[in-house]
Amino acid sequence: MSRTPLHPTREQIELPIVLDCLSDPIRLAIVYQLARQERFSSELRCGDFSGLSRKSNLAYHFAKLRECGVMQMRVAGTNRFLRLRREDLAARFPGLLDAVINSAAKDADRLQLLSGCVRSTRTEA
Amino acid sequence: MSRTPLHPTREQIELPIVLDCLSDPIRLAIVYQLARQERFSSELRCGDFSGLSRKSNLAYHFAKLRECGVMQMRVAGTNRFLRLRREDLAARFPGLLDAVINSAAKDADRLQLLSGCVRSTRTEA
Repeated sequence: MSRTPLHPTREQIELPIVLDCLSDPIRLAIVYQLARQERFSSELRCGDFSGLSRKSNLAYHFAKLRECGVMQMRVAGTNRFLRLRREDLAARFPGLLDAVINSAAKDADRLQLLSGCVRSTRTEA
Repeated sequence: MSRTPLHPTREQIELPIVLDCLSDPIRLAIVYQLARQERFSSELRCGDFSGLSRKSNLAYHFAKLRECGVMQMRVAGTNRFLRLRREDLAARFPGLLDAVINSAAKDADRLQLLSGCVRSTRTEA
């Protein structure tokens, strides 16, 4: 079984909402860790972020990132797979995602971006 | 007489706070108009933005932009002069300010960035 929760279309992605969404340190950490793992795999599982915060809190942040168009969530059975919507963001706001990720990387310690760092690179569904 | 309100030092500028500050459409419009006028003058006066919103509302947004480190405010007599803190932002978060401004420019109509557009380019104190 596969079902996909609601995502905005590319055209529905709005700059103020994206900036607001990325202004939360835990959501910045999720985006940073997704970007950091892209060289190994395009997707990560929700469970891979369990070191960042409580499960219910993470579910809230995943939903915010999905609803603002930064992240794609794919449901397969009991797993939820996450990836950045790079192409859509690049089309709407060229250079923005990398500028935010690189800015966050400069402050990785200060922002505690690697607390509960993702160790898994599994993508099997 | 000249007095300068409190500004964060370069090192005190924090990414989540900057992103949160820029997630407001009126503040995006202020930043966009400041950037747009940079070729004519480095500073604009608070009164130049009177088409954007009410005076008290603008004062609130100017304070937010100053306190997060995006904008420098200089007081001279009864005038307040505003400019972007380009060097400080470029040092802390390379590429971020331009990525946000260029992204906003793409959606200038949708975000109503040019409502009450600045016409003045005066900088005399």
